[in-house]
Parts: sequence; C-alpha cells; structure tokens
Amino acid sequence: MELWYTEEWSEFTRFSIKIDEQLHSEQSEFQRIDILRSEEYGKFFTLDGLMMVTEKDEFIYHDMIVHPAMAVNPEIKNVLVIGAGDGGTVRELTRYKSIEKIDMVEIDGRVVDLCKEHFPGTSSKLEDPRVNVVIQDGLKWVLEADRNYYDLIIVDSTDPIGPGEGLFSTEFYQNCYNILTDNGILINQNESPYFDRYAKEMRRAQDKIRNVFPIALAYQAHIPTYPSGHWLFGFASKKLHPLVDANHELWLENGLKTKYYNPQLHFGAFALPNYVKELLGDV
Amino acid sequence: MELWYTEEWSEFTRFSIKIDEQLHSEQSEFQRIDILRSEEYGKFFTLDGLMMVTEKDEFIYHDMIVHPAMAVNPEIKNVLVIGAGDGGTVRELTRYKSIEKIDMVEIDGRVVDLCKEHFPGTSSKLEDPRVNVVIQDGLKWVLEADRNYYDLIIVDSTDPIGPGEGLFSTEFYQNCYNILTDNGILINQNESPYFDRYAKEMRRAQDKIRNVFPIALAYQAHIPTYPSGHWLFGFASKKLHPLVDANHELWLENGLKTKYYNPQLHFGAFALPNYVKELLGDV
Repeated sequence: MELWYTEEWSEFTRFSIKIDEQLHSEQSEFQRIDILRSEEYGKFFTLDGLMMVTEKDEFIYHDMIVHPAMAVNPEIKNVLVIGAGDGGTVRELTRYKSIEKIDMVEIDGRVVDLCKEHFPGTSSKLEDPRVNVVIQDGLKWVLEADRNYYDLIIVDSTDPIGPGEGLFSTEFYQNCYNILTDNGILINQNESPYFDRYAKEMRRAQDKIRNVFPIALAYQAHIPTYPSGHWLFGFASKKLHPLVDANHELWLENGLKTKYYNPQLHFGAFALPNYVKELLGDV
Repeated sequence: MELWYTEEWSEFTRFSIKIDEQLHSEQSEFQRIDILRSEEYGKFFTLDGLMMVTEKDEFIYHDMIVHPAMAVNPEIKNVLVIGAGDGGTVRELTRYKSIEKIDMVEIDGRVVDLCKEHFPGTSSKLEDPRVNVVIQDGLKWVLEADRNYYDLIIVDSTDPIGPGEGLFSTEFYQNCYNILTDNGILINQNESPYFDRYAKEMRRAQDKIRNVFPIALAYQAHIPTYPSGHWLFGFASKKLHPLVDANHELWLENGLKTKYYNPQLHFGAFALPNYVKELLGDV
C-alpha cells in the first residue's frame, strides 16, 4: 500500500508527500489536526488540511519569522507571539538572552499538547521560565493588553480562512499598534504571491497593515512545503526601518548559529521581484 | 474525466498540475517531448517528464538566466547560448541593443520546431537577424569555437541525466573558459539545493566550475514549477565579480521592463541561506 498526503496549492495544483504513517487525527474545538510521518520530511502536521510544520524545513520559517526583527532592534525585551502552538517561534526567541518575557497566546490548546508530544524539536522551549503560554483567542489578548508594553509582536497564524481569520483584520492590527512600544515591530506570516487566492489575501493584509503602521514592508523566504515555495512575511513598525536600522554587528554578538538566516540574506529577503512589488502596490 | 500531470520532485514528493489537453507527445532522437495545456499555467512542455517551461512563470527563469550577467558587463557583444530550444533566453538577450551576435546551439531540433509552433511567447525572437540557431551538440561547439571570442556563455540545459549530462563536465567548463574573452562570464542553470538528488548535482557542478574559473558563485530564484521552487544558477567568470562589478546605473539605461529582475534583487539573489552555503562548501 502507498499512502500520500496531498494538499491543493490551487484549484489546479497539488503537492503530495509519501507517508509512512498517520500518527494522529482529531477534530479539536477549532480545527482538524493531523500528524503524519514521512521518510523525507520527518514528522509534520496539518491544520484543516494545510501544511503547518515539517521537521525537514521548519528551520526556514522559524528563522525568518524571528531573526529579522531581532536584528533591527537588539533591545527587544517583551514579546507577544500569537498562534505558533508548535513552539518553533518561541524556541528561536528563547535563544536571545536579552529577551525577558514571551507571552504566547494560542487559541487551540490541543495544538500545543499534541506538539509537546510529537514535536520536541519545536516545542522544547515552551517550558523556558520566560515563556507564558496562554490558551486564549489572540484577538481578545491584544484588545486587553497594556498599551505600549510589547517590543515585538509575532503573528504566527494559520491562513485567513478559519480560526486565523480575525488575525488579518484592521481592528486586530490597530490593537497590535496600541500595545507596541515606540520602537515596536509587528511581524506576520503573509501568504504567497504566486497563486491568485493567496496573493489576494497577501495584498489585503498588507493594505490593512499600511493603514495602521507608518512603516510596512514585505520580505520573502524559500519554504518548499508551503504553496509555491515562495512565502512572504510582513514587517511593520512605528519607526524602525528593517533595512536602515538593521544592526548586524550587534546581532552577530548573540553568537547564534542559524541554518537559514544570515545578515546578507536579511537584505536579500526584502529585495522582492517586480511582479510581487506590483501586487503590493509598490511600483 | 480529470487529467493530471505529475512530476516526481523526489522519491517521496510529487507536484501535479491539472491538464486541459495534451497537445503533443513524441520521442525525438534525444528525448521524450510533451506539450500540455492547463488553465493555470497556460501551455507548458516537459523533456523526459521534467518541467521545462510554463507560460505562467517562464519570465522568472529567463529574467534570472540573462539579466544578472548583463548588469555585470554592459559591454557584452558576442553571446553563446547552449540548449534553450524554447527561445526564452534568446528573447531576453535580444532586448539589449548592445548585443551584436547570439549563437544558439541546441542539440534537439525538434524542441526548436515545436516551440516555434506552440510557444510564440518564448520563440518569437529566434528570427532576430543577430541570432544564429545551430542544431548541434554544444559539447562539440565549445571544443571547436574560436578562443577568446564570447563575452557571455549561457548554459540553459536540462538536468545532468540524459542529453544534458556532458554540459556538467569539467572538460566542458574548460572549453567554455577557453572560448570566453578576458571579461567573459559563464552562466548555468544549477539545480535545487533542497532535495538530496538535485543538491548533489548542484554541488558537483559547482566544484567542477571552481576548478576552472577563479570566480564562481551561485545565485537563486523563486521558480515554483521547478522542484522545491528554490532554484540556483551559477555565475562564473575570469575576473568580473557579480556583486563588486555590477553596474546598475548603466543597466537601467537599457530601459528594460522586467517582471522579476531588478537591481536590489540582483544582490538579494546572491544572498544564499546558510544551509545552501554549507552545501556549496562556502562556510
């Protein structure tokens, strides 16, 4: 017997991975969670049938959602992470001694529990004493948190359809702005520019962020297990510019060994193709 | 009925495109050629079951195999293109008024004929008076061509298995070196770093090029229809450095509208992830 996981990257495009074993499947309060094991990608899990994390290439996503912001503001102390139940984003953040507090607000406690069981590689640092895991809707958290408190907010969400939908709204971005410090940075995963469905969501999210934040740019990474392999992140801030204010002399003093991110790539990631700039209205 | 084209990106990974119609299929003297039509990608063709060109994203590959070299040496006059039977590389080259002569040496005349019939978007400039299309083995051509003649050689080949195999040999690279001018540049498509099979070929090719050329770097692009979507090109030269010698003031004077390439992206493309640098032995 052959078992294949197949994801529809678009109506006309499928990406499939050969599976050794389906380790777990459940319908949580919020979404369907599947955990699978494959020879090439190791373990991976999906939410509502969409790829979230594979052991083979999670380092790319987690490097790129954390390190660019940390290189722009080395004085980040208080961090809010929304979503990210697998723990990979928190793992990268805990590598910085300068970070004092990480609130991780994940709506679905089952994702956290299952990742603790199946993905020690990403979830191992959720027990770090600086980390406060809260099972709650991120929308509620950003509405009620103290103003001018967080130096960095990372929105490590699912796509804009399903439980992650509200995390792509203007109201949410405005609440993020309110609880960020003057040097505050907002990072969000921002879909792919290649397939129409994802590109529309990318454009909509970016437009909304730009209505709230004076600085808002997109940057890219090669993530082969996400639709098209061309994935974007959003960098928004009140005043720090991701290229002008990047300080890699200081960043290198952290002595972090990274498998994807490096200082030259920081600048390269913001160098978008013309067709993507056009989609974002930047030409 | 549903018709799907499926390519094995690795033993455990498949990429599939929904097909409207198979327009043509034949076994030429050298390889199997298939031409297909799909709603999302327009027409595309495969050689021995591997994706070559789609109407949707050929602009990415052809931008990136041509413009970086042209920005490094604006005085390129004589160009040799090996492979590239679809004509897309020649199309981009003919946009430069400064180029005087393009020899395109393609081993398989059937690819050229079929692309002229089915892909006017890429093949339209093969009739440019500066273009000399030769149906011949590129290995023979580089052995017999005049020394110190070409300013640029572009190896737009298939993978290292099948008819393209010799185009990844040390002897071939040495012959390219011999027929290049002192400012000569060699560009080759150089596989993907993500899947082991491709990564090994990438490393082997790069090692061989470095034994022949004093300057040899790799650069990357997001090409979603190639395995992993993370594709590399090689830039080798006798003395011009792709970053130090890039002259985009002059390049912009050409006034070319490009859908992927731009000056910032030129530098970004050479900013490789750490894991790719390690594969290439650059760390």
